[in-house]
Amino acid sequence: MNYNELYQQIATKKSYLCVGLDTDIRKIPAHLHKESDPIFAFNRQIIDATAEYAVAYKPNIAFYEAHGPQGWESLQKTLDYIPNECFTIADAKRGDIGNTSGLYARTFFDPSASGLNFDSVTVAPYMGEDSVTPFLAYDNKWVILLALTSNIGSHDFQMLPVDGRPLFEHVLEKAITWGGPDRLMFVVGATQTAQLSRIRELVPDHFLLVPGVGAQGGSLAEVSRIGLNSHGGLLVNASRSILYASDGTDFAQRAAAEARTLQQEMATYL
Amino acid sequence: MNYNELYQQIATKKSYLCVGLDTDIRKIPAHLHKESDPIFAFNRQIIDATAEYAVAYKPNIAFYEAHGPQGWESLQKTLDYIPNECFTIADAKRGDIGNTSGLYARTFFDPSASGLNFDSVTVAPYMGEDSVTPFLAYDNKWVILLALTSNIGSHDFQMLPVDGRPLFEHVLEKAITWGGPDRLMFVVGATQTAQLSRIRELVPDHFLLVPGVGAQGGSLAEVSRIGLNSHGGLLVNASRSILYASDGTDFAQRAAAEARTLQQEMATYL
Repeated sequence: MNYNELYQQIATKKSYLCVGLDTDIRKIPAHLHKESDPIFAFNRQIIDATAEYAVAYKPNIAFYEAHGPQGWESLQKTLDYIPNECFTIADAKRGDIGNTSGLYARTFFDPSASGLNFDSVTVAPYMGEDSVTPFLAYDNKWVILLALTSNIGSHDFQMLPVDGRPLFEHVLEKAITWGGPDRLMFVVGATQTAQLSRIRELVPDHFLLVPGVGAQGGSLAEVSRIGLNSHGGLLVNASRSILYASDGTDFAQRAAAEARTLQQEMATYL
Repeated sequence: MNYNELYQQIATKKSYLCVGLDTDIRKIPAHLHKESDPIFAFNRQIIDATAEYAVAYKPNIAFYEAHGPQGWESLQKTLDYIPNECFTIADAKRGDIGNTSGLYARTFFDPSASGLNFDSVTVAPYMGEDSVTPFLAYDNKWVILLALTSNIGSHDFQMLPVDGRPLFEHVLEKAITWGGPDRLMFVVGATQTAQLSRIRELVPDHFLLVPGVGAQGGSLAEVSRIGLNSHGGLLVNASRSILYASDGTDFAQRAAAEARTLQQEMATYL
């Protein structure tokens, strides 16, 4: 998917909601455990219930990988089920030396290799340029690079001062020499609104993927006020607050209600 | 595997060789392609040929993941085939917020989840403490944290000055407050010998996993002179130089010869 297609979808749905498919077998409703693939059975209903309100879906790869080969089958079925107009994110936090990152890129971007055909993958920046650029070599595929994450550990290294400015600013500045707003996004936690204005100055046109609204406590209003640009420029992710709105047979209905509430708030900011 | 068991194996085999199983379907000998699982068929023969000389095996997860569910089956069979006395490393470069890192830890450490039961996993430090500590919660399992990697991109961020010292030194200093030498190792590229003395000062007792000897050009003599400690303290990885020593039917024999040459040089340094 390209930049304009993504923006068109945001404008049409009046939404920049990304639904995080952090599907935990221990948290899904009990009645689904009798299905042959409970994780896919859950995801399918979540997708059906939220596709009207969401522009993107983000399976968190750890939740699938933890089930071995069967988990990768659930991931494949889930990805294939997501409507074509939706942007898809493999939240994998990969990154390794060049030849290895090339293999990870094939995993997520080349269906002839693994079967998967995601639009984007999250990548960790610690190993530098040659660990990121192999992911940028695919047309209409995106890297979403960790910049400033939503967790408490983000203060350990991302905020360390380098020449008087936090490390994450150097990550942003260097990364935008590797890829433009048409194929590079950044992860910025919703809990980091104090830094978001500065980030928008440094990367005015790039999309930001913002996790941390909902269960992690970030404010959608604040993130939207500071982060939106003329092409949307935001994908705001919610996972647990949507997926686990109910643990009963009404889980999909309640997920739809949560997604709709977020979408309606987003519509007022666009 | 615990610290003493690992050291005993180093003393017994007079080796600190780790064989990196970066098994690339495009590089393995043509005659193996008729096997039902060519990657496992290759790995099995490599393991048989090198187990006398190696104390550790390190499957590079990207090379398996790129084949989808079938690749994870090859990984499982490979791991099960590695002799029990050898230390096993999932070279996965994972790391995410706490609950997600917990799932990645289950993937590689809890056979009741994914089927896999590695001794250790490589982890990227960018997201800080809560992205690393879930991997440290398993008895006799290890985190191998990226400190200073072997690739050219290591200069982009790992070497940036924070309070007059490179970022990777801060990673080392903070990480040793999370785990002792009994469950935490560090990745230090063999191409980084200029920094290795300083690293040994900062972490005298921790094991270092050193990739970059062989195809990447690092010197075994230099790494050993600076890096060895009274318990070995090194695992030196070679991948391509062993795996692809020949592309003919003699590949295993040639791999054994390469591994033996490295082991015999190591024996002189121990």
